Amino acid sequence: MAKSIIIDCDPGVDDAIALMLALRSPELVVQAITTVAGNVPLALTQRNARQICELLERPDVPIYAGCPRPLVRSPITAEDIHGKTGLEGATLPTPSLPLQSTHAVRFLIDALQSAAAPLTLATLGPLTNIAVALIQTPEIVHGIERIVMMGGGVTHGNITPVAEFNIYADPHAAQVVFESGIPITCLSLDLTHQVLTTPERLATIRQIDNPVSQVAAAMLSHYGKADEAKLGTVGAPLHDPCVIAYLLRPDLFRASPGQVQVELCSPLTLGQTVVNLQLSAEQMNTEIVETVDAEGIYKLLTQRLEKS
Amino acid sequence: MAKSIIIDCDPGVDDAIALMLALRSPELVVQAITTVAGNVPLALTQRNARQICELLERPDVPIYAGCPRPLVRSPITAEDIHGKTGLEGATLPTPSLPLQSTHAVRFLIDALQSAAAPLTLATLGPLTNIAVALIQTPEIVHGIERIVMMGGGVTHGNITPVAEFNIYADPHAAQVVFESGIPITCLSLDLTHQVLTTPERLATIRQIDNPVSQVAAAMLSHYGKADEAKLGTVGAPLHDPCVIAYLLRPDLFRASPGQVQVELCSPLTLGQTVVNLQLSAEQMNTEIVETVDAEGIYKLLTQRLEKS
Amino acid sequence: MAKSIIIDCDPGVDDAIALMLALRSPELVVQAITTVAGNVPLALTQRNARQICELLERPDVPIYAGCPRPLVRSPITAEDIHGKTGLEGATLPTPSLPLQSTHAVRFLIDALQSAAAPLTLATLGPLTNIAVALIQTPEIVHGIERIVMMGGGVTHGNITPVAEFNIYADPHAAQVVFESGIPITCLSLDLTHQVLTTPERLATIRQIDNPVSQVAAAMLSHYGKADEAKLGTVGAPLHDPCVIAYLLRPDLFRASPGQVQVELCSPLTLGQTVVNLQLSAEQMNTEIVETVDAEGIYKLLTQRLEKS
Amino acid sequence: MAKSIIIDCDPGVDDAIALMLALRSPELVVQAITTVAGNVPLALTQRNARQICELLERPDVPIYAGCPRPLVRSPITAEDIHGKTGLEGATLPTPSLPLQSTHAVRFLIDALQSAAAPLTLATLGPLTNIAVALIQTPEIVHGIERIVMMGGGVTHGNITPVAEFNIYADPHAAQVVFESGIPITCLSLDLTHQVLTTPERLATIRQIDNPVSQVAAAMLSHYGKADEAKLGTVGAPLHDPCVIAYLLRPDLFRASPGQVQVELCSPLTLGQTVVNLQLSAEQMNTEIVETVDAEGIYKLLTQRLEKS
Repeated sequence: MAKSIIIDCDPGVDDAIALMLALRSPELVVQAITTVAGNVPLALTQRNARQICELLERPDVPIYAGCPRPLVRSPITAEDIHGKTGLEGATLPTPSLPLQSTHAVRFLIDALQSAAAPLTLATLGPLTNIAVALIQTPEIVHGIERIVMMGGGVTHGNITPVAEFNIYADPHAAQVVFESGIPITCLSLDLTHQVLTTPERLATIRQIDNPVSQVAAAMLSHYGKADEAKLGTVGAPLHDPCVIAYLLRPDLFRASPGQVQVELCSPLTLGQTVVNLQLSAEQMNTEIVETVDAEGIYKLLTQRLEKS
Repeated sequence: MAKSIIIDCDPGVDDAIALMLALRSPELVVQAITTVAGNVPLALTQRNARQICELLERPDVPIYAGCPRPLVRSPITAEDIHGKTGLEGATLPTPSLPLQSTHAVRFLIDALQSAAAPLTLATLGPLTNIAVALIQTPEIVHGIERIVMMGGGVTHGNITPVAEFNIYADPHAAQVVFESGIPITCLSLDLTHQVLTTPERLATIRQIDNPVSQVAAAMLSHYGKADEAKLGTVGAPLHDPCVIAYLLRPDLFRASPGQVQVELCSPLTLGQTVVNLQLSAEQMNTEIVETVDAEGIYKLLTQRLEKS
Repeated sequence: MAKSIIIDCDPGVDDAIALMLALRSPELVVQAITTVAGNVPLALTQRNARQICELLERPDVPIYAGCPRPLVRSPITAEDIHGKTGLEGATLPTPSLPLQSTHAVRFLIDALQSAAAPLTLATLGPLTNIAVALIQTPEIVHGIERIVMMGGGVTHGNITPVAEFNIYADPHAAQVVFESGIPITCLSLDLTHQVLTTPERLATIRQIDNPVSQVAAAMLSHYGKADEAKLGTVGAPLHDPCVIAYLLRPDLFRASPGQVQVELCSPLTLGQTVVNLQLSAEQMNTEIVETVDAEGIYKLLTQRLEKS
Repeated sequence: MAKSIIIDCDPGVDDAIALMLALRSPELVVQAITTVAGNVPLALTQRNARQICELLERPDVPIYAGCPRPLVRSPITAEDIHGKTGLEGATLPTPSLPLQSTHAVRFLIDALQSAAAPLTLATLGPLTNIAVALIQTPEIVHGIERIVMMGGGVTHGNITPVAEFNIYADPHAAQVVFESGIPITCLSLDLTHQVLTTPERLATIRQIDNPVSQVAAAMLSHYGKADEAKLGTVGAPLHDPCVIAYLLRPDLFRASPGQVQVELCSPLTLGQTVVNLQLSAEQMNTEIVETVDAEGIYKLLTQRLEKS
């Protein structure tokens, strides 16, 4: 049976690839896409989401704009990784798909309160929308089956030596989510850094040659150069599609229970996800995904992009 | 001309007195009362607001329930000051006045976006509702003429040696508000500690003898005993009515420009409002009200309670 | 019987006046003067102490140089208050009085370990020397009868809205001292701001006309202009002599027990002395001196400066 | 030519093995051993150092006791790793080797100020002694050629998920040292976790059969069981001997320049060494040793233990 999900994202190249993977996968019913400020400002993330849905010919998926700023800290963006538009490399027309007039937070609260069965949230960006909804109407936890998130790092960061971008961009929101009692599966940098955009993998995507795969290939050829340089790797980490891949093929991953706490105060460690794997079961609040079959993920992605 | 205001509050005895003063003052058009968790939990603060409006025979004022918890920190309450119900001393029937079904944050966003002219917010409790609205839809700043708040302290606190209850209960929300660029008038503990419920003042209220004044007198005779003991004063500080009095009679007060920053991290100084009065005009974000004609405030309150 | 004291200081104009008061008071046996970086760098504070001792013809008092930097934070100075040399207004010859070759910390440890009876420490500057001695050799607490310090503020600061200079200049050292279990008497800004250098008081000192009083008058006529402007007072607070006055005439002061904790982390409240006066006796670590007979202090100072 | 070193340590089993390695290596002239509170209290660390020197028949090496407590934080110990005496597994007589009467900090200052050529400090414990000496007499930096330390972690901690014991036990001291400008080589947990006490390696040591190797083998058979359980490894990390091995055989290691900052405030990340490897050369303050030939280290250790 298909799984009903809402994708909360800040596209971003890897968010865009994640949306392609989700929208091409019949196992998932994407009930809505909610957008948030993150990789680029909100005006771009919601537009980029609409462009991708239009490219995929999925006008049935409603797209909402959410919070344009984090809870407490000052906003940051990541144009060095995603380019000025957020989808560098892609040349896509101004979308004719409309933006929903309802605020994403309002939509989330209403949808989660009225859902026939709890939904899964796939979160690919800063957790501002989810946190604001939780602060406003804590009962929505009962409408959420699980949050599967890309965020944080166990042994290192990317935006600082110890903090990952999505969490650093709104650490207070992340802490609200980790403290909420909602079951959480966390795909951290330690995992996504195993899923590199190697030349071979990009070549395989490039060979598919349909409109969607061409856009994917074009974006990925620009994506993450700054990360590559910093990491000294061949290929950049493809973060967000891992979340969708996890929903489709959990067998490609292995996870352990952990307790995640987010650093909210120290300028030096702000946004760090401190992961304790040594506690008793009742102190754990997160499934930490530690290993992945990276080849399997790229095979899955390639296969879904092949569908015309 | 009457001034349109929204009162955001967490009744609480002194909130209740403030509501009485506002609802009995023709100079103010109370467009709505929004409630928040604070002195007592949300389920009580919204009920208490309804009880007071019913007592004052003002079914025309819609009452909304807002956030049941602070942004980030764990919730606290102040039953030592206000009693278990929040209105200790008052015996009021279960209210028949309804609670609006819309969330206070949703109402605030809609009202502030659609207002013909900017509104004044009188805030008497933790600033969670206002902050959540600002995070979600920052444009509402254009719908706010000014926030007149009871909150903070310049030289001391009440819940800790350096923090005042309303700010300590949601320091992150307070910081969001102080950083918003909205014109703010702040009535701090330094001011409200000059406005004591002395036996003479309570006796004057007790002598009025109408249903509203009797409830006011009954509540005030129980109110703030813990504060009195701690401060060593005769009478407790009557905080929240100062906000309404300021809106009615600004001539009773004197203010100076200051810069307020809220401590968000240190366990020792959490929720402290650090006030700098020595900066240039453009660095100031708040009017700090420093002196008050306390006798004038009690005269005003007594006069309005006398109206049948 | 005369009381044996060691004065730890960072002269500084008000330190210099305090040294004059101490060295002219037969009730006190000044066993040594230890100096520390503070109002001006160590090279100047030790030189200034030697100049004052020479002016007072007290070659018998050994002078030691201590720590040139705080424990952890980066050094600050206060030339705006004390002038570039630290003794602005005074014209004093290069001192021929020698500096002891032993480090002040080494001297303090040795003196406190070998003292026949516990000594009183009068501290007029940052507490670095005392803290380093305590960290190195905690047993010296048994050699200290009491620390009488100028430092901190209860309701306000001077170097920031909430922090006083001596504590802000080395907050970690202050916390080590407050946690040491040593009996402490603290004369905070709340007290010293009652002891202003009014024109009348300065005129009285100026009329004395002996070499010491002339230097005192000359320094005080330059001293603390920045403070005066900021406070809007006539005359600047004369901080450090209050410590010596307290040792000579405790009857001029009134104190209450308090618990002092020093803020070490928050950039906003760094160095604040958070004073809790509402705890049980065993939680108190300090005598907070709250009221003073300022006229009495200036009378005492004037009288001692009159001695030729 | 032999290298002159001072070893600052808190024995502890791995410190004891490090002392054995150093004292059996003619390439090193151990000028003194200074001890500090750490793995066990100071009264035990200084006694343990004397026991090891006596076992090795090295009465020529003077042993000093230093600071019994950290700069600011409250003391911690690690009896779970080293046993109650600090040298669990060893049965050694009460040492007749004397403790020097001079304090370790005083010795360090005097030795470093009077050294004919700058010395190397090998630090195996919390950095309290070094920091206190630096605060007191900053000029000693000129007497230090390099500090080679065991401390910190790049990707993880041991006492908390992110902090290593030596740094966590006195984070303020560590920050003073990292900020001092002294050339530092840092052997972190990332390195020492590669140097495990496997059964094979312990068997080799056990087979040597001389008085020193027998004590080494006895201690190592008890050592680090808690670590093994937590890490899920066969064998525990042998931290401190890596410092001595580095001094003897730098060719067994590979290092990169990094900037190390120590977290001093957050309860969550206290004592974390945040390592930035992506900065310009002038921002780097440390050589981070990343890889090691673990087999080479054990060969070296075995060989030196074999000497009778």
